[in-house]
Amino acid sequence: MMPVLDEVLAANEAYAASFDKGDLTLPPARAFAILTCMDARLDPAKYAGLSEGDAHVIRNAGGRASDDAIRSLVISYKLLGTKEWFVIHHTDCGMEFFTNEVITGLLANSLETAALGDEGFYDVGEGPGSDAAAEIDWLTISDQAQAVVDDVIRIKEHPLVPNSIPVHGLVYDVRTGRLLDVPGAEEAGAAG
Amino acid sequence: MMPVLDEVLAANEAYAASFDKGDLTLPPARAFAILTCMDARLDPAKYAGLSEGDAHVIRNAGGRASDDAIRSLVISYKLLGTKEWFVIHHTDCGMEFFTNEVITGLLANSLETAALGDEGFYDVGEGPGSDAAAEIDWLTISDQAQAVVDDVIRIKEHPLVPNSIPVHGLVYDVRTGRLLDVPGAEEAGAAG
Repeated sequence: MMPVLDEVLAANEAYAASFDKGDLTLPPARAFAILTCMDARLDPAKYAGLSEGDAHVIRNAGGRASDDAIRSLVISYKLLGTKEWFVIHHTDCGMEFFTNEVITGLLANSLETAALGDEGFYDVGEGPGSDAAAEIDWLTISDQAQAVVDDVIRIKEHPLVPNSIPVHGLVYDVRTGRLLDVPGAEEAGAAG
Repeated sequence: MMPVLDEVLAANEAYAASFDKGDLTLPPARAFAILTCMDARLDPAKYAGLSEGDAHVIRNAGGRASDDAIRSLVISYKLLGTKEWFVIHHTDCGMEFFTNEVITGLLANSLETAALGDEGFYDVGEGPGSDAAAEIDWLTISDQAQAVVDDVIRIKEHPLVPNSIPVHGLVYDVRTGRLLDVPGAEEAGAAG
């Protein structure tokens, strides 16, 4: 099997060989930003129709409005001129299958990868683990639609976010590839 | 002009119409993760050769190893089985053109978008601004190669990251589409 690094570099070689995007400018041409989940099944450029140079894409576990996502969004509008933002979570998100207590317990037991069963994640590894997980808010999700609305509100209410920026909240359906409305999100994210 | 939300939903409709990835599983098929910048010119799926389902992609301003990026990486390996990570910054990154002091001053003055001139960002907007920026570490970059190495080391030394995970540090060249080696990164990120 070709090691992952070699695979990535070979794919990049092919991309660079026909690359014709070398003149794009730093600010996003379409002046918007998307905050979405790191989930491997999501390709925001494909699901939202982005070409290179179009829009900022911020991704983390869950697509959550973490302090770091808000750092990125503020840089996106204040320095690089985006005027409209999207928060896009998705169905079947891993963040729905555990809690802060569960991941803290798993990591305290071992740093090896856990398994996912019918009742959630369980540990199969042996120690040493680490207690450092207890100090982290893992930003897990108990209700997907509510999490989208919560994140839209957290962004809208941040003191560094101007009221003029609309924030659209949507859910991506990993089974159909479709972006779905979230009740209450559009009202919560409307520009003032 | 079609509003951005309508454009995104129309593009998504086209994507969903020929969608055939509805059976992908939650854990990334190729068991790796990429941490990279939100910059609009970067399309990690294209520059690294990813199909839907292959790999986690985490993005923030700068592609920095923030606490939130590390939260995401730990979830990526502990719960979803990734075994190898990439930190990929890029040339002409906006994070090289300002400092904590500059963005704090700009945001204190106004929440409107600043402009970029030969000597860096300057404010063109009128207040009110906010002093909340002073409490944030904006994770700016003064030396791009060193920032990659610093981020690789920060990840490798985190108590929740097992030593078995290799972390590759690279820079994406926005003029050529090419991934470039970073001196010292491979040694810093080697699996123990």
